[in-house]
Amino acid sequence: MEVEFKAMLDDLDVLEKSLSDPAPIHKLRSHVENLAALSKGNTHRRSKVKELSSEVVDSNPYSRLMALQRMGIVENYERIRDFSVAIVGIGGVGSVAAEMLTRCGIGRLLLYDYDTVELANMNRLFFRPDQVGMTKTDAAVQTLAEINPDVILESFTMNITTVQGFETFTSSLKNKSFCPNKEGSGVDLVLSCVDNYEARMAVNQACNELRQTWMESGVSEDAVSGHIQLLVPGETACFACAPPLVVASGIDERTLKREGVCAASLPTTMGVVAGLLVQNSLKFLLNFGEVSPYLGYNSLKDFFPTMQMRPNPQCSNVACLERQKEYMLEKPARDAAAKAKKEAEALTAIDDGPLHDDNEWNISVVDDENEKDTTKASSSSGALPEGLTRELPEADEYEKAIAIGSGETEEEDEDDLEELKKQLEALNAA
Amino acid sequence: MEVEFKAMLDDLDVLEKSLSDPAPIHKLRSHVENLAALSKGNTHRRSKVKELSSEVVDSNPYSRLMALQRMGIVENYERIRDFSVAIVGIGGVGSVAAEMLTRCGIGRLLLYDYDTVELANMNRLFFRPDQVGMTKTDAAVQTLAEINPDVILESFTMNITTVQGFETFTSSLKNKSFCPNKEGSGVDLVLSCVDNYEARMAVNQACNELRQTWMESGVSEDAVSGHIQLLVPGETACFACAPPLVVASGIDERTLKREGVCAASLPTTMGVVAGLLVQNSLKFLLNFGEVSPYLGYNSLKDFFPTMQMRPNPQCSNVACLERQKEYMLEKPARDAAAKAKKEAEALTAIDDGPLHDDNEWNISVVDDENEKDTTKASSSSGALPEGLTRELPEADEYEKAIAIGSGETEEEDEDDLEELKKQLEALNAA
Repeated sequence: MEVEFKAMLDDLDVLEKSLSDPAPIHKLRSHVENLAALSKGNTHRRSKVKELSSEVVDSNPYSRLMALQRMGIVENYERIRDFSVAIVGIGGVGSVAAEMLTRCGIGRLLLYDYDTVELANMNRLFFRPDQVGMTKTDAAVQTLAEINPDVILESFTMNITTVQGFETFTSSLKNKSFCPNKEGSGVDLVLSCVDNYEARMAVNQACNELRQTWMESGVSEDAVSGHIQLLVPGETACFACAPPLVVASGIDERTLKREGVCAASLPTTMGVVAGLLVQNSLKFLLNFGEVSPYLGYNSLKDFFPTMQMRPNPQCSNVACLERQKEYMLEKPARDAAAKAKKEAEALTAIDDGPLHDDNEWNISVVDDENEKDTTKASSSSGALPEGLTRELPEADEYEKAIAIGSGETEEEDEDDLEELKKQLEALNAA
Repeated sequence: MEVEFKAMLDDLDVLEKSLSDPAPIHKLRSHVENLAALSKGNTHRRSKVKELSSEVVDSNPYSRLMALQRMGIVENYERIRDFSVAIVGIGGVGSVAAEMLTRCGIGRLLLYDYDTVELANMNRLFFRPDQVGMTKTDAAVQTLAEINPDVILESFTMNITTVQGFETFTSSLKNKSFCPNKEGSGVDLVLSCVDNYEARMAVNQACNELRQTWMESGVSEDAVSGHIQLLVPGETACFACAPPLVVASGIDERTLKREGVCAASLPTTMGVVAGLLVQNSLKFLLNFGEVSPYLGYNSLKDFFPTMQMRPNPQCSNVACLERQKEYMLEKPARDAAAKAKKEAEALTAIDDGPLHDDNEWNISVVDDENEKDTTKASSSSGALPEGLTRELPEADEYEKAIAIGSGETEEEDEDDLEELKKQLEALNAA
């Protein structure tokens, strides 16, 4: 529109010179200027801020977030501006996750999708009918930039499952220009919000290669259940460690989808899954609460199963096996660090008195009964129905396999630490 | 803007007559017409639809919702267009709940709030910075009408806790013009998404008076937990049946809020609570899954407690006591209907064969272990800490009290049904 306004004002200048009475031109010019001002929208578009303020005034977009610090939930909320999060798949879950992180004031968002907005997407949150036909990444950037100009938005309109796309994907994750001194890759977390197996495997491959922690999310085709899962290469199962049955038996999922049949979806289920995903991300990034390794959502019964999945020593993904090996080698150092931290905390605890001296009502904190119950879901019985054989080893067998593979047992931890220290000293001396 | 465009075209007409060469005017006119077209937005603004189509095409905004029918989740999704839902409080939870219901194609939404949009609200979903200064109801109607023009939106910019506001509130709930033959009030469900006790008590009062089923929602001041609750007057506890401790001890909550201190909030927690609330509403309205009587969300541990609360026979709310009496009087008829339904279902079950004859993998359905665990939360121990006395009777005592109060015991159900039938016949004969 700005181009049109400029052209009109130029035309009016030319016309004015050819007229004896400039009054009608002046009138037209003021119309054009009014319209230009109107088209730019109102004056409430918010400007960028330099620092997150905790001041309690209506005009502070961060007051309710900085309150998390004062309430003792988050130690340092301002760190959020240092973090980069990549979101793969800007659909029903990914778009809402992007909006939540944007409103939380995340430092930088990288958005990946190759699809365009359709009217058929309007039963999920975020996209608007006037964005139909735009790419999902462009439409997302349009909306998110308006909501919070402080967030750096990078959009990648492409398919990460193609050879070219995968390369662009991994090199964009490696780019450290936002935070040059950061350890590891250029992003702090990758969120997978895609709707198919192929794309999940591509994210898995990239993250295994880059030692990149990521979170996976999914919603069932009948729209009434979903899940989120934390994947730390080497430490937890990767996506290829425990493939879904349909893949294990060699069936291509594309043959399962029939012509003219579309999956159901609901803004509720997708909104809940996006909320749980970003909440888990905030806990992971800002270091508060307990980060869930896996959380399911069965909306018909409002049932939320949790579990933990260890890596599969027979995983078909080579990069996963490498990360598993590294993780086992780093175990002694990790154990020592955990022990040192525990001792330091114990020392601090002695110094502290009771939290509230004036306990007028004799209120005491008790353990949550249900906590144990919800994590029990992973302990399934060993028996399998007739006709099924176990593709993967059982969890107990796994620990043994890894221990044998890396030539160590639980008892030898301390010795290994000594060994590692010596190696480190030798390296430093060299 | 349209007024400006019209004025410009008129001015150009006048100018054209005074000129010998009309070419510059033609050029200017085409600029104005281009701008007018651009300002109206693109052609993708979606038009209203007459009937919900299940056709699987990109241009159908209801295809993914109608798929719920084909997948056997919902029996008749189109009924959604017959329902009216009132949302009280268009803040972090209410606005998202309104957007979800709008995208689901709900028939009619009634929105209540007296507040205006501020930049301090930008850390929750829904409102945009360009809406700052608008009333929340106006801003919501602007956004929702654009998302789905099929939904009838009624906005009430007012405080329901004032005498005048409460009257407008109850009379708007009673208005049956949308669905004249509907039983009960003019709405199918009221969702309370307010942030204070006073407003909850006003919703409670109105719903008790109108025999109106409603759902309550809330998010904690530290932003990391929340809950939803179903309230059916007479059948479940009303909001006054089990007042929070702070009210029971006679402290006004307004004295607890200090100057310059604001509650924390997160788009994640509010999005999850809104999602759980609207999911429960859809289950209630469209009759699928299990409607949760109470569902909590502790985001630090990803723990979701459930419980059921019976009404308090000593409730301070007179309308609640009346509803409790009615509910007990209707018990025999309800039991008989449930028995008849069970018998009819048993008869149908005999006719049906096994669901899948070709059970190649011998897969059988087993009960979910965790299901019982999550509902255990309500069974607290009887012992109270020193200094606290029980304000309300225990659940077991309550059943006895009601049974005595209405002069019946479990064994007399059949006789009471006979008695009621006789009374009904006598009334019909009169």
